[in-house]
Amino acid sequence: MTATPHPGRVGILGGGQLARMLALAGAPLGLRFLVLDSAEEACAAQLVPQLRADYDDAAALAEFAASVDVATFDFENVPAAAAEWLAGRIPVHPGPRALAVAQDRLAEKSLFRELGIPVPAFEAVDSREALDAALARVGAPAILKTRRFGYDGKGQFRLRSAADADAAWAALGGPSAALILEGFVRFDRELSVVAVRARDGEFRAWPLSQNWHEDGILAATLAPAPAGAEIEALALGHARRLADALDYVGVFALELFQCGDALLANEMAPRVHNSGHWTIEGAETSQFENHLRAVLGLPLGDTRARGHACMLNWIGALPDRQPVLAEAGGHWHDYGKSARAGRKVGHATLRADDLEALADALERVGRALGRQPQVAPVIACLRGG
Amino acid sequence: MTATPHPGRVGILGGGQLARMLALAGAPLGLRFLVLDSAEEACAAQLVPQLRADYDDAAALAEFAASVDVATFDFENVPAAAAEWLAGRIPVHPGPRALAVAQDRLAEKSLFRELGIPVPAFEAVDSREALDAALARVGAPAILKTRRFGYDGKGQFRLRSAADADAAWAALGGPSAALILEGFVRFDRELSVVAVRARDGEFRAWPLSQNWHEDGILAATLAPAPAGAEIEALALGHARRLADALDYVGVFALELFQCGDALLANEMAPRVHNSGHWTIEGAETSQFENHLRAVLGLPLGDTRARGHACMLNWIGALPDRQPVLAEAGGHWHDYGKSARAGRKVGHATLRADDLEALADALERVGRALGRQPQVAPVIACLRGG
Repeated sequence: MTATPHPGRVGILGGGQLARMLALAGAPLGLRFLVLDSAEEACAAQLVPQLRADYDDAAALAEFAASVDVATFDFENVPAAAAEWLAGRIPVHPGPRALAVAQDRLAEKSLFRELGIPVPAFEAVDSREALDAALARVGAPAILKTRRFGYDGKGQFRLRSAADADAAWAALGGPSAALILEGFVRFDRELSVVAVRARDGEFRAWPLSQNWHEDGILAATLAPAPAGAEIEALALGHARRLADALDYVGVFALELFQCGDALLANEMAPRVHNSGHWTIEGAETSQFENHLRAVLGLPLGDTRARGHACMLNWIGALPDRQPVLAEAGGHWHDYGKSARAGRKVGHATLRADDLEALADALERVGRALGRQPQVAPVIACLRGG
Repeated sequence: MTATPHPGRVGILGGGQLARMLALAGAPLGLRFLVLDSAEEACAAQLVPQLRADYDDAAALAEFAASVDVATFDFENVPAAAAEWLAGRIPVHPGPRALAVAQDRLAEKSLFRELGIPVPAFEAVDSREALDAALARVGAPAILKTRRFGYDGKGQFRLRSAADADAAWAALGGPSAALILEGFVRFDRELSVVAVRARDGEFRAWPLSQNWHEDGILAATLAPAPAGAEIEALALGHARRLADALDYVGVFALELFQCGDALLANEMAPRVHNSGHWTIEGAETSQFENHLRAVLGLPLGDTRARGHACMLNWIGALPDRQPVLAEAGGHWHDYGKSARAGRKVGHATLRADDLEALADALERVGRALGRQPQVAPVIACLRGG
């Protein structure tokens, strides 16, 4: 009889629903967790211990580093200095460089371009004059964004024409503004690649996800996205080049706009991603488990889909769970958060073996919950509309 | 925007791996848990709070009852008085009657017989003379067992002939002995029904499990068991009659011996069961989630299998997890326990879409871990041997 191997303790910067789902996926692997989060009620802390402190609290970081064997992220906007300090002491996956690139829209889009991954037109903007110059090159409509710390549509201003430049600058500009102007893309649909890269460079991707947003927040994901082999290969090629360039370890998402046969990269998320939540029930191995396997140097799990899945995000408050639980392939995910406008408080995944059954289930759930607008585009896509 | 519905807190008597897997299944439903267990290191307490006390500690029971909305079990040998006391205060599922029947082999087998569920020959034994009389009626070989608190082959003595009666009595007998003598069954195979019954009487069963034991402890489960529709219907009919008779709420297992076309009931477990662990990856809804759905009065989830699964138990210590994780359908379950002889410390589930792929995976894993004896009978069964 050999001794039970003692697995490591995984530290997670950020204690939200992603950390919570990582902890749920990691428990069967025998992992212990510690989350670092300043929030009073970090929802992951209902399951694992929390170190309650800011990311730039030096004493807390030291305690965190001393308590875990490896660190990863639930939240990518951790101060670069904190990530680098940690990386000098314990393995941190993904590494500080991937984090730094993903934190800065300008660095990110520049890297995409460098790697031959097509992107919408973009220009750096750091003054009112630079905005005019950028508008002249990018054209209108366009979107002015903060280079850093934007998410879920926050820190953005849409310019319909050059006449909106003053208003845009008033909203986001200032003496030390670090902005980016991006050309507005009239896309046919939004896709994402959720993929994982191991320490040894092995790369695996789940089938493409197709995403629908409402008010800048993900509302629904369908996977596998109905896509031809060429689009799939193109998207996965982009994701792989990006991961290799960053020597990335763990799960990440690459968001893409499809315009005809072309794909334009929008942004990457250096972590498990909302558009990959369907993998919990819809794939052999979930994004959460595979992220942990990668971070720990374990073999990667199979990323094949099991049937067809649609993830519906619950924003602000949870609807009634009964209609979802009454579906044969209905799965519920309550993040244990209190209700608050704009907050991601849970999601549901509907899984079925064929497209028609999935569309039928979505119709029933949409009707029962009064959420027809959320399910309608997915149903139309499933029915070839 | 409606308020987020506040789910209940579920109390679990016993904080072992079953409670741990219930907690992992319940977190996405938004449930909170409290386990009552006297153990210093109850493995469920790595994830949920533990009330550390004996089941008959009145103050602890009162605190437990005041802290949870509903109670259930990880361990069925809870004192009947404790279960009844609790049931007078909060909903307890399964109820004290189911628990009492399952705790007493004589009551259990008598109920099986009463319900028309065939059982091996059995006789109550409470004295040395009664043992002789029982042997005369049941015949040899036979097994003498304690009526209560036996599990995993403990509290049993096998009699090859009447000449072993003295030794059997010396091992288990005594002035207040409460024993049962059971005829030894030469079975073709061991099956179990894992099923769930809702508060409103709805009954669902997973496909049959076929089980292999080593030293009285479950070693491997294959599901769905290769069985004809008649055997399946017979087994499910027995399980349903039993559940209805006990007005059972929750998941339970009924262990059966198959002898030719006949099925003999061995025992029931009034809880989630080791032979249902494969449902985590191998079925649309796991036994753990469906137990919680039943206990809380939520709709039951789909019990259909997804492909073919084999669960391998890890007893004493965990083997190397790499060979399992390297399999496309390989899933690992570490219960977070320290190693100890005879202790269930984890399991693996191998899942595949066809029988041949599953047999191949079992061969690779068995070879890599030096566990050919554990996988061989399953492989033989899969290959029709």
